[in-house]
Amino acid sequence: MKTIGYCAHDKNSPLVPFTFERRALRSNDVAMEILYSGVCHSDLHTARNDWGWTTYPNIPGHEIVGRVIEVGADVTQYQVGDHVAVGCMVDSCQECDPCHQHEEQFCENGMTQTYNSPDRQTGDITMGGFSKHLIVREEFVLSVPKTLDLSRVAPLLCAGITTYSPLRTWNITKDSRVGVIGMGGLGHMAVKLAAGMGAEVTVISRSESKKDDAMELGADHFLISEDSAQMENKASHFDLIIDTVPVKHDLNPYTPLLKIDGTLVLVGQIGPVAEVMTTPLIMGRRRIAGSLIGGIKETQEMLNFCAEHNILPECEMIRMDEINEAFERMERSDVHYRFVIDMSSLQTEA
Amino acid sequence: MKTIGYCAHDKNSPLVPFTFERRALRSNDVAMEILYSGVCHSDLHTARNDWGWTTYPNIPGHEIVGRVIEVGADVTQYQVGDHVAVGCMVDSCQECDPCHQHEEQFCENGMTQTYNSPDRQTGDITMGGFSKHLIVREEFVLSVPKTLDLSRVAPLLCAGITTYSPLRTWNITKDSRVGVIGMGGLGHMAVKLAAGMGAEVTVISRSESKKDDAMELGADHFLISEDSAQMENKASHFDLIIDTVPVKHDLNPYTPLLKIDGTLVLVGQIGPVAEVMTTPLIMGRRRIAGSLIGGIKETQEMLNFCAEHNILPECEMIRMDEINEAFERMERSDVHYRFVIDMSSLQTEA
Repeated sequence: MKTIGYCAHDKNSPLVPFTFERRALRSNDVAMEILYSGVCHSDLHTARNDWGWTTYPNIPGHEIVGRVIEVGADVTQYQVGDHVAVGCMVDSCQECDPCHQHEEQFCENGMTQTYNSPDRQTGDITMGGFSKHLIVREEFVLSVPKTLDLSRVAPLLCAGITTYSPLRTWNITKDSRVGVIGMGGLGHMAVKLAAGMGAEVTVISRSESKKDDAMELGADHFLISEDSAQMENKASHFDLIIDTVPVKHDLNPYTPLLKIDGTLVLVGQIGPVAEVMTTPLIMGRRRIAGSLIGGIKETQEMLNFCAEHNILPECEMIRMDEINEAFERMERSDVHYRFVIDMSSLQTEA
Repeated sequence: MKTIGYCAHDKNSPLVPFTFERRALRSNDVAMEILYSGVCHSDLHTARNDWGWTTYPNIPGHEIVGRVIEVGADVTQYQVGDHVAVGCMVDSCQECDPCHQHEEQFCENGMTQTYNSPDRQTGDITMGGFSKHLIVREEFVLSVPKTLDLSRVAPLLCAGITTYSPLRTWNITKDSRVGVIGMGGLGHMAVKLAAGMGAEVTVISRSESKKDDAMELGADHFLISEDSAQMENKASHFDLIIDTVPVKHDLNPYTPLLKIDGTLVLVGQIGPVAEVMTTPLIMGRRRIAGSLIGGIKETQEMLNFCAEHNILPECEMIRMDEINEAFERMERSDVHYRFVIDMSSLQTEA
């Protein structure tokens, strides 16, 4: 299928329109017209090859909402016209233990990412959601609950599941106390989702500037990390702290805030953290962990949870040709809280 | 009660005999003659004020085995002649949540350490097990199972419980795979205890030099951390890695060895670890944690477990007046695997 997307051809150039072929429909494939595409920091990092693993041409985008336009002969769950979604993965081996346990993100043979990954059959590099059409095997297609506002669903597919999954892994309930560090795309979803689960939610931030926003998003408390008296007052307070900070930082101010057996989970930063003091870990059996998106089954559960609790990200809608400006604004943290591209702004004939 | 111990008077001097008063017996106190006292690295660090918190005069020793010589009027569990043991704690508030949950080591009001801590009633600094007699409240006295060789029990009270507790916290069973880093006093107990639980045990070491010893202690495998092929072969292998290394080190070679949701638990090092790479944590939901000795109830459970499985540390018996030489040998890692002081070598009349 011939389609068009916004493409990075090298690390220094802006994204530009690019016409390319999507694979021919396989029997278990779902073809969709993309309606909305969220913009994640990973898109920016990959387009610019910040992590050194980008293959060009590269079309980013892994927060995808669309409408089914064709299905393969063996597809059973979807039909033409359905509203569907795709996140960070489009395939996995389906044979290893993690795949069998519905944790395809940890596939032992390596999951296929929505972009910048070799297709498991052809080896062609996958192209993401900054495009007009997408073809994905049925097992990696999500169903969008009818009650959700379609235009705001896309960021749930990465920012949503990335923060929902640790809340479930660490069994957060209405009796839990959750801290959230960093209030960007991920952090603002962590606040909404933890609040949706009934937990006591505290945003932990360096200054007071985000306090009003945090409370509006559903936080119960706001903790200023530069205020040592406030921090001491919350020692041994939290069951779980979700750390969404995307750059190298110091965890040592935060670990003493955890209860005995509490966990600080990193979801935002690839790379080294500053030297960790073992004392707060040893003296409270506290833990530092990581978490990666979530499995397909859990992603569907998250979408259903959001429908049930009417939880949606805060989005700023942009046109496809505004993507390069959006990237620049993201670098300045000038976004509340996620850009979503209205893909109707992209026409098939470039 | 007048007694004698081996005492550090400042950070530079050797330990010397010192006559002092133990407190008068309280109604819930047990008085014991100390028969054996294990020598832990903490003793060395405290005597020399390496951590900066030592109060002098200081009598170290928190791996203590003795015989009851007197009990207070309200003591119900012990009587004169019983063989008993005392570990790192001699008191706690008994009122906070951790105390109620049998985790006195995490007492919110601060547990009283066996030495170098203010007594909760008098404020006098506690004096440890390198002495002839000890008086401890009943709740912090352990019962030594009759079948255990008394002369080898002492190191269980710190090295034993420090490694037993994480094995229980992380639910190690015969189906688990446990790695042990560092094979000193703590590490060799981790091997024996994990093997006693039926787990597959692997010692992870920089060179082959400790392989024969490891296998003799009960390890199933030996993994050389400098051999990248061996390390790669054990990627995603372990449920739990117990890291007993007592100095600042790099965790990054080890975290990829953990399975999804696996934990590396630090029990040996107070201070900072080298910068931790988040990638292996995020890509496998892996965790880094700390653990501190164990509660009194769990310590008794550990002693009973050791009796049931005939598990005892490897000990080298020394005389009290050999303690300064023993400290020097410990600094050179010249001990297999724990010094135990035969306290009959110390006479009350100095």
